[in-house]
Amino acid sequence: RTAHTLDDLARLAAGQLPADVWDFVQGGSGEDGTVLANRAALDSIRLRPRVLAEVAEATGYCRLLNAESALPLAVAPMAYQKMMHPRGEVDMALAAYEAGVPIALSTLSSRTIEDVCGTGAVVWFQLYWLRDRDAILGLVRRAERAGCRAVMVTVDVPVMGRRLRDIRNRFAVPEEISAINLPPVMRGGGTAAKPGTSAVAAHTGAVFDPGMGWSDLDWLREVTDLPLIVKGIMDPEDADRAVSAGADAIVVSNHGGRQLEGALPSILALADVVDAVSDRCEILFDSGVRSGTDILRALALGASGVLVGRPMLWGLAVDGARGAARALEILRVELEFALALAGCPNVLAARRLDATVVPG
Amino acid sequence: RTAHTLDDLARLAAGQLPADVWDFVQGGSGEDGTVLANRAALDSIRLRPRVLAEVAEATGYCRLLNAESALPLAVAPMAYQKMMHPRGEVDMALAAYEAGVPIALSTLSSRTIEDVCGTGAVVWFQLYWLRDRDAILGLVRRAERAGCRAVMVTVDVPVMGRRLRDIRNRFAVPEEISAINLPPVMRGGGTAAKPGTSAVAAHTGAVFDPGMGWSDLDWLREVTDLPLIVKGIMDPEDADRAVSAGADAIVVSNHGGRQLEGALPSILALADVVDAVSDRCEILFDSGVRSGTDILRALALGASGVLVGRPMLWGLAVDGARGAARALEILRVELEFALALAGCPNVLAARRLDATVVPG
Amino acid sequence: RTAHTLDDLARLAAGQLPADVWDFVQGGSGEDGTVLANRAALDSIRLRPRVLAEVAEATGYCRLLNAESALPLAVAPMAYQKMMHPRGEVDMALAAYEAGVPIALSTLSSRTIEDVCGTGAVVWFQLYWLRDRDAILGLVRRAERAGCRAVMVTVDVPVMGRRLRDIRNRFAVPEEISAINLPPVMRGGGTAAKPGTSAVAAHTGAVFDPGMGWSDLDWLREVTDLPLIVKGIMDPEDADRAVSAGADAIVVSNHGGRQLEGALPSILALADVVDAVSDRCEILFDSGVRSGTDILRALALGASGVLVGRPMLWGLAVDGARGAARALEILRVELEFALALAGCPNVLAARRLDATVVPG
Amino acid sequence: RTAHTLDDLARLAAGQLPADVWDFVQGGSGEDGTVLANRAALDSIRLRPRVLAEVAEATGYCRLLNAESALPLAVAPMAYQKMMHPRGEVDMALAAYEAGVPIALSTLSSRTIEDVCGTGAVVWFQLYWLRDRDAILGLVRRAERAGCRAVMVTVDVPVMGRRLRDIRNRFAVPEEISAINLPPVMRGGGTAAKPGTSAVAAHTGAVFDPGMGWSDLDWLREVTDLPLIVKGIMDPEDADRAVSAGADAIVVSNHGGRQLEGALPSILALADVVDAVSDRCEILFDSGVRSGTDILRALALGASGVLVGRPMLWGLAVDGARGAARALEILRVELEFALALAGCPNVLAARRLDATVVPG
Ligand SMILES: Cc1cc2nc3c(=O)[nH]c(=O)nc-3n(C[C@H](O)[C@H](O)[C@H](O)COP(=O)(O)O)c2cc1C
Ligand SMILES: Cc1cc2nc3c(=O)[nH]c(=O)nc-3n(C[C@H](O)[C@H](O)[C@H](O)COP(=O)(O)O)c2cc1C
Ligand SMILES: Cc1cc2nc3c(=O)[nH]c(=O)nc-3n(C[C@H](O)[C@H](O)[C@H](O)COP(=O)(O)O)c2cc1C
Ligand SMILES: Cc1cc2nc3c(=O)[nH]c(=O)nc-3n(C[C@H](O)[C@H](O)[C@H](O)COP(=O)(O)O)c2cc1C
Repeated sequence: RTAHTLDDLARLAAGQLPADVWDFVQGGSGEDGTVLANRAALDSIRLRPRVLAEVAEATGYCRLLNAESALPLAVAPMAYQKMMHPRGEVDMALAAYEAGVPIALSTLSSRTIEDVCGTGAVVWFQLYWLRDRDAILGLVRRAERAGCRAVMVTVDVPVMGRRLRDIRNRFAVPEEISAINLPPVMRGGGTAAKPGTSAVAAHTGAVFDPGMGWSDLDWLREVTDLPLIVKGIMDPEDADRAVSAGADAIVVSNHGGRQLEGALPSILALADVVDAVSDRCEILFDSGVRSGTDILRALALGASGVLVGRPMLWGLAVDGARGAARALEILRVELEFALALAGCPNVLAARRLDATVVPG
Repeated sequence: RTAHTLDDLARLAAGQLPADVWDFVQGGSGEDGTVLANRAALDSIRLRPRVLAEVAEATGYCRLLNAESALPLAVAPMAYQKMMHPRGEVDMALAAYEAGVPIALSTLSSRTIEDVCGTGAVVWFQLYWLRDRDAILGLVRRAERAGCRAVMVTVDVPVMGRRLRDIRNRFAVPEEISAINLPPVMRGGGTAAKPGTSAVAAHTGAVFDPGMGWSDLDWLREVTDLPLIVKGIMDPEDADRAVSAGADAIVVSNHGGRQLEGALPSILALADVVDAVSDRCEILFDSGVRSGTDILRALALGASGVLVGRPMLWGLAVDGARGAARALEILRVELEFALALAGCPNVLAARRLDATVVPG
Repeated sequence: RTAHTLDDLARLAAGQLPADVWDFVQGGSGEDGTVLANRAALDSIRLRPRVLAEVAEATGYCRLLNAESALPLAVAPMAYQKMMHPRGEVDMALAAYEAGVPIALSTLSSRTIEDVCGTGAVVWFQLYWLRDRDAILGLVRRAERAGCRAVMVTVDVPVMGRRLRDIRNRFAVPEEISAINLPPVMRGGGTAAKPGTSAVAAHTGAVFDPGMGWSDLDWLREVTDLPLIVKGIMDPEDADRAVSAGADAIVVSNHGGRQLEGALPSILALADVVDAVSDRCEILFDSGVRSGTDILRALALGASGVLVGRPMLWGLAVDGARGAARALEILRVELEFALALAGCPNVLAARRLDATVVPG
Repeated sequence: RTAHTLDDLARLAAGQLPADVWDFVQGGSGEDGTVLANRAALDSIRLRPRVLAEVAEATGYCRLLNAESALPLAVAPMAYQKMMHPRGEVDMALAAYEAGVPIALSTLSSRTIEDVCGTGAVVWFQLYWLRDRDAILGLVRRAERAGCRAVMVTVDVPVMGRRLRDIRNRFAVPEEISAINLPPVMRGGGTAAKPGTSAVAAHTGAVFDPGMGWSDLDWLREVTDLPLIVKGIMDPEDADRAVSAGADAIVVSNHGGRQLEGALPSILALADVVDAVSDRCEILFDSGVRSGTDILRALALGASGVLVGRPMLWGLAVDGARGAARALEILRVELEFALALAGCPNVLAARRLDATVVPG
């Protein structure tokens, strides 16, 4: 059963994962309205191909965050990947390493930072804002020492979104899996869920600091020299402010539809942020990328690259590092087709493509 | 069977109420086209979240009509609540009281004004324009004496909408339930329905005055010192005129899709009315609110709060005061999530959010 | 089985008519795409109700073509009504007479002009442009003598639309029914259909003149003093030219979706025509009117009235004059509701309502 | 089983062709998203008919590429027509000849150029850019000698689109069929497909030159005096450049949705290209034309004619030359209806029609 598309991988993964884990992966906040809206909006972006562009060598090879990348994409940070596969984030990193793309490693990783960096992959450490400032500092230092190439601070999770699938399932991460990089008291492994919430949400509520503000970003900028990526920006003013605060990159994202129910599809937020930032920092995009054409859509609207979330988990679930590699391989092939067929020899050319919203 | 959303409550209520009562509650005018359009329009309003806004204490606490309210919402006035539960409006008021939000009490209440005010809730008395001017005055005086905090005059029911479900069911309110606050001759309890109409419509036609005009509003403004809320305004010119006539608040509403078939979804009327009024009075919104995100949508478009209709009846039907309280509790939780995730520490901040129509 | 809406009548008629006759009535050109588009466009027109407008006497009473009419509507001209009911156009006219509205009588009427005028109804004679100029003149003179109050010349049938249902059914009008008012050689009763066409289309092709031009309209204007209605205009320039040619009224219409496949929904053509004409003549609207709200939509967009087509046939099929009367009665009730609920005491007020397109 | 529409022909062909051949014909790139978008966009173009236009002789007769044509259409170039019918392109050309319209003959034709030209049809030779420049020159000279009237160079296939149906089917052209006009080593007949690709794509990849650029077009313009048609342009700048390079005609096309997944529907690209070119060369349109109304849509948006693709294959599959002729006959009849009903005596008039996008 060869997977030719990421959706093929989704079908395979759905057949393999426990139902509540599948729901945890797929679900969004509320009744998944924003997940669906993300997809509908991406489909509505129609590209105007160029021709006679000498695309024999069309390639996604590019620079991302001042480093070379085989593709304009990074693996999105995602918690608890051991739920997908026993080797979890390490296998995910192996796949990224093989494919030559960066991987963002979640604060809620179920494998140690060191093990993941040991794969040789370009690792960006994703930081959730913990109530305990020392714990944050500890993570940053550890990431620096382990060789992470950037800190990606996620700013759209003051609290975890209200995800009905998890609430209905009273979802809890299996006991043997936990946020291994956090100090033991904060790991929350095996927390049982109470009615009306999930254990994951309860854990998040206990350790994340909903009071995070712009001054915290200033503090973070001070304490580390690593490049700083701010993930979860949708508003041009916030983007502008993040740049002023020293961000090297911004991720335009609505967290894959998992946070604010009713949020604007993030692809519809991209162009305004690009305008506001006007090249002062890099702009990445995520939420709903499912094909090489989607990557091209984001590039055409001004992103320098994308993060890919759930599809990477599908691949990991299906076949560990090989499955995750398959996901990246599909995206590489599709992107090369899309670039060539749109008349773009490279990523730079793609950023000059014309994109039009054609409602559905 | 815990209800996690208002729609969960709807399902529970649907399983419990007689079919014709359910139809009376759910139905709109014609084939429910405006009910559906209200919902589609709300879903099309997409919000652009802000970040790093220090939302640890995100709260819906606010002022509504110059009084404190735990949430930017009031229970909408709805007739004959004893059809939902034997204790009817009294239980509804108890839930509102517990939750710290106002309740609007219908002219067609099936419990006495005094009993309802006795719960301690903040009660706004909703007035339908009766053919008998003395009866109106009597109701207003009685509301004043009972301690109601405002008069809410509903202006979008010169006649009752042509509700096909009720007509097809020849719907009549059960004999033992009636508009207890009206003079006995006007109560219309137990009226039987003739073909082509419902008993409810027949009763309304007999006692409501379709001739109501602006001068009647002036008269009402004269006869009472209570704050005046004008409910059912969709047009900016009418809004302007209502303000000039002394309205303290306006409710932008199409009566939950129950009056003019083919009416503009009321959420699409909100922004124009807000512009026309420009802070000269408060603006509430109703028709289709089903979640905390919907409340946030209305706030972002300039409302200072919303009325919630049918969902409160679902709660009441399911479990009396406790069920109604559950509805309010769900809304409180959802609104707090929505505020925090949109980067709004409070209701005021929410009114500066960016909202975009993304057709669906 | 009481019909509460025109769609109820449709269901009843569908159960009664032979399938091919039903198809002839319901069908449009091609695969009915324009029929559906007409309906979708009407549904997308959302009205903004006004309030406190003293609507106790809200009424559709108005002037149409310089005569009084109980409602801002006329029965559309429709061919061969004996297929619906043995008494055909005479019963239709009786219903119109009772309801106090005009009826347009088709060139292809299956009852004589004289019989129809004998009902006392206000009759407008609908003229198709025949290849034989003398035959046209003969019809006009006969209409004048019989007391018709206007000539309505239909300009959107140079050829009959390509109606696939009829073609697939090889539809032919039953032998005993024919265009009784035409000279015998032109009646075409009982013509059999050849593959790839219908007998109705073949007949039309034989007797209608596709070469009709503006000079023919001038000629018609010369030969009769009756008010002239030009039916089937969609373009503002054509409207302007029709006014210059002496039209007293224009019908904005795409012939109920039966002529040009892919035509603009006629409701979306209305406003431009109204602008171009700016009160120089009356503007009627048809194609898809199915409720009082639809009439209000057309009025709000500037029409002075509408023609109602298929629903009148449904009524006639169900119960002759009484069924047709029922259709008109439903429309009267619905329109009065719509007027009152939109805050329009009369038709004139309706023409100042705000209407917005909200795509679906 | 008479076919009255092209879709009737599709149904007949689907019942006759092997499933994988059907998929090869129908499929687009990816999951056919662009195929569907092409159709939805065409349906959304609504035409405003004109009246009283003296359309007795309404005709599609026109000039295409400086020659007379019975209809404003040509048969699109399509590979390997022997898969449809043993006589393949020769029968297709016979049908075109009978109908008096040009046919474009694919580089991947399965019948010889000479045999096809022998039918007497007006043949345009479609050129794919081969890696071997001599082979190109050889084809052009052969086309000139055989009497082709134009060279149509297809510029939107630097690589073949990623067509999932073919990939899933591991589609290969049957062994006995090949690109007979290519030098034997390039014919690729009977190539077997490897996983993840189709044999057709593999063959294309081997012989087509993805490096084609604007200078190659200059070279082509130099080496032949035949009129030059550039097929597959979607961008106004590219159109402008093609005109400057000496193109006599441009085909606005997204290759029937078979190339860039996510491409703009080509009908939505047409108007901009027409503007950019402003009569400096002819503009043809393709991708999704399925009826006479679709042709009228393209004309109204400024095209001078269309190419028709898949429907011609359906006809050929159903009944060889007769089936293909039936497809053209249906289009002729439909176009004449459309012209007459839109008030256009001829193709020129059609180009002045008003066309509006009505989503939905
Ligand atoms: C199961 C799952 C876990 C996630 N965990 C994190 C996380 O720990 N940190 C974070 O910043 N984002 C997290 N995200 C969000 C992703 O980084 C990314 O923004 C989102 O998945 C992109 O949308 P997509 O899944 O549609 O590609 C998670 C997403 C999923 C699906
Ligand atoms: C069963 C029912 C009874 C109602 N009765 C009244 C009423 O007596 N007075 C009034 O002003 N509005 C009445 N309304 C309208 C509500 O106050 C409110 O405008 C509407 O329900 C809001 O829409 P929602 O139900 O979608 O929240 C009623 C609505 C319902 C559903
Ligand atoms: C069965 C049928 C016959 C018709 N015959 C005529 C006719 O003879 N003359 C004419 O001008 N219009 C004719 N029409 C068009 C109507 O006058 C009118 O324009 C159209 O039906 C309006 O659309 P509606 O049916 O959706 O209301 C006919 C329509 C139908 C459905
Ligand atoms: C089976 C098939 C084979 C095709 N082969 C060619 C080809 O050899 N050369 C070319 O320029 N276009 C080719 N095309 C594209 C057509 O010329 C044309 O652009 C497209 O089919 C138009 O869309 P339609 O099929 O919706 O009418 C092919 C299309 C199909 C469906």
